[in-house]
Formats: sequence, structure tokens, C-alpha cells
Amino acid sequence: MTPEAPGPEGTRPTPTRRRPGGRTARIRTQVLDAVRAELGEHGYDGLSMDAVAARAGVHRTTVYRRWGDVGGLLADVLDAASDDDWRPPDTGSLEGDLAALNQEIQAALIAQPPIVAALIAASFRSEKAAHAQQRLWEDRYARCEIIVSRAVRRGELPPHTDARRLLIAATAPLYHQLVLLRTPPDPHLPGHAARTAALAAAASAFAEPPSASDT
Amino acid sequence: MTPEAPGPEGTRPTPTRRRPGGRTARIRTQVLDAVRAELGEHGYDGLSMDAVAARAGVHRTTVYRRWGDVGGLLADVLDAASDDDWRPPDTGSLEGDLAALNQEIQAALIAQPPIVAALIAASFRSEKAAHAQQRLWEDRYARCEIIVSRAVRRGELPPHTDARRLLIAATAPLYHQLVLLRTPPDPHLPGHAARTAALAAAASAFAEPPSASDT
Repeated sequence: MTPEAPGPEGTRPTPTRRRPGGRTARIRTQVLDAVRAELGEHGYDGLSMDAVAARAGVHRTTVYRRWGDVGGLLADVLDAASDDDWRPPDTGSLEGDLAALNQEIQAALIAQPPIVAALIAASFRSEKAAHAQQRLWEDRYARCEIIVSRAVRRGELPPHTDARRLLIAATAPLYHQLVLLRTPPDPHLPGHAARTAALAAAASAFAEPPSASDT
Repeated sequence: MTPEAPGPEGTRPTPTRRRPGGRTARIRTQVLDAVRAELGEHGYDGLSMDAVAARAGVHRTTVYRRWGDVGGLLADVLDAASDDDWRPPDTGSLEGDLAALNQEIQAALIAQPPIVAALIAASFRSEKAAHAQQRLWEDRYARCEIIVSRAVRRGELPPHTDARRLLIAATAPLYHQLVLLRTPPDPHLPGHAARTAALAAAASAFAEPPSASDT
């Protein structure tokens, strides 16, 4: 997932930049770049509408009118992060895909400046940021479901596999260790967590009964 | 883990109450009770030294002198939570123990008032609370290692099993879903996550090579 991970995002070099759009799109790019930079340098507590406006070189009334408050800025940074063409890694095996995915998540969570980590922290401060963070994770996990469907096609997994549950099992230890337990990054963790989920999947841990709509 | 979980804690009816100790211990009990009550009602943003002092019926200068700031109060609530005799559930099987543990964690994370959830959120605001939360989780996970050693004794797991990695795999999905992804509680999740970890463990996902110090 590069900095984007099913993790939060925001470290990407502004995918909005390539969009069509004139002055409005340009202002958004400048402002969101400024939010990321301020957040990376000062964290949530140092983030202010005025500092963002000054850094972006945009009039503060424009920033207030369009984003309302710091929560609105953070939410837009998070929403902008799913505005890309990110696809999960395709390595040819379930365990390989999950390990590569976890490497991207770990890299994003420990990146400097800690923008992804700061966005997650901000989601405990602002309802708007919390909802945007939820939307972003939903988008990332939905895109990752192809990892499971490819494994099903290759015959690595039974057809009725709960993709979301498998993806959560594979990625949750990364977030738990790095975001909540705050343990130092362990270079083996991405691979270990991937292998654990792949072994559990092979033992039918994520098998679902066929639903009535299936033929 | 009852409200205590390897999760954060604080909802317990003040284990400090039974301690020996005179006025100093009594004041601590009153103040920490007040912190939990204020946190449950108003969250971190509504927590103030003065409101805690007033609620506890303790002079504010005492609270400032002894706890310093809101971070100090939160850290002491978290430290007090490990001052109990909590033991993980003993159901007779690895999967049963993990499922019962996960039930306790889920119950703590969705409890009302949301004291455990508020303490986790506070750990993103206060360095002192973050460190105390880390100490509490470390204490809880260390106590849970007996789940794995019992399973090894029963022959359910190989002797060289990485207990911590197994416990993280079993419990991480609960925290990930409820604390970060903020999905509605799923009554099947505690059992599913336990079963996933137990299946992975049976497939040697957490096996460690024997260390040099072993005979």
C-alpha cells in the first residue's frame, strides 16, 4: 500500500495534483499539502487553520469557508488519500501478498514525518477525522479483497472465504503493536502476521458456509 | 479479563480500596474514582484537575501537588488498574481460554460508561497516559502467558511456542475493529479471533526454534 496502506494515508505526493480542475483544485492541493506538512512537523496540537492558510499561501477566509475547522481539514486529507489508483501487491501467493501488504502498512506507520500515525491519533480528537479515517480504511480493505479472490482462483483457499476477516487477521497485529502497544518496529512482524493468517486460512479459519444466493 | 482485559482498565471498583493505608491511600482512591467518573461522563476533553478535586472532595492543591496534571491523573488510574489479582480465564482448552479472554476484552471496550475506550483515546493525548497504558498492557499480556503454558502442558502446543505473538494474534482483531476501525461490536468476533489464533498455533505459526539456553 505504499504510504497509503489499508492504513490511513496522507503521505502520498498529493494525488490531487494530476486532477483536472483549475483554481479550486489548485487551492485544495496547496492547502492539503500544508496540512500534511504541519501535521508531520507539529502533530494535531500544533495544527491551526491560520498556520495552514499561511503555509499554503491561501487567504485564511478561504480556508475557513471551505474546510470550516481543523477537523474538516484532516477529513479532507484522509478523503484525498483514497483518490488514487493504489492496488495491493500481487506476488503470486496469498502469504506473499499479505506479507508485502504488511510491509507497506508497517512502513507507513513508522514513516517520518509521522503523518499516517498523526492522522490516526487525530481520529481520537475529531469526529470528522474519525469518520474520514473509517472511510479510508473501508476503501483500502475493499481494494485488498482481490488478494483473497486471487488466492481462491489459484486454489489456495476455498471459494467461500470471508475476505474481510482474513485481511483483518493478517493486518491487525501491525496496528496493534505499532499504534496501540507502541512497541518498536519488528522487521519480522509483517511476514509473521502474514504467515499466521495464511496458515489459519489454510486450516479453514475464514471459511464461510455457502450463502443461499450461491448456485 | 473483566473490565480489565489486556486492554486498558480502570472500570474496576477500585482495587486500591482494600489496601492497607490511611489518609494517603484514601485520598488516592477518592481521586482516582473521580477521574474515572469524570472521564466516563465527559471524556478527555472534559477532564480537569479542578473538576476531579471537586468531585473527589479533596483540596485542589493536594491534587496538583500529588498528580501534577491531567496526564498524571490518567497515568495513575492506569497504574492502579494492574494493582489487582486478575488472572486470565481457565476453561481447559487453548481456544476456550482465548475466546473467554476476547469476550472480556470486547466487553471492556464497549462498556458504558466508556472508561477503557476513553483511556485508550487519552493515550493519544498525553505521553504520561501513553506510557502507563503501555505498562498496563505489558502487565496484562504477561499474565496471559499462562494460557499458552497451560496449552503446552496439555500437549496442545509445541514447547517452543512464542506466547506473546500468539496472544497478540488472538486479541489484535478485537482492538483493531473496535478501537481503530470503529466497527459495531460483532458477537462472533471474540470466538472467531480465538479460533483463528488456535488454528494457526496448531499449524505451528508461533513455533520458535529452541533457544541455546534450553537443554
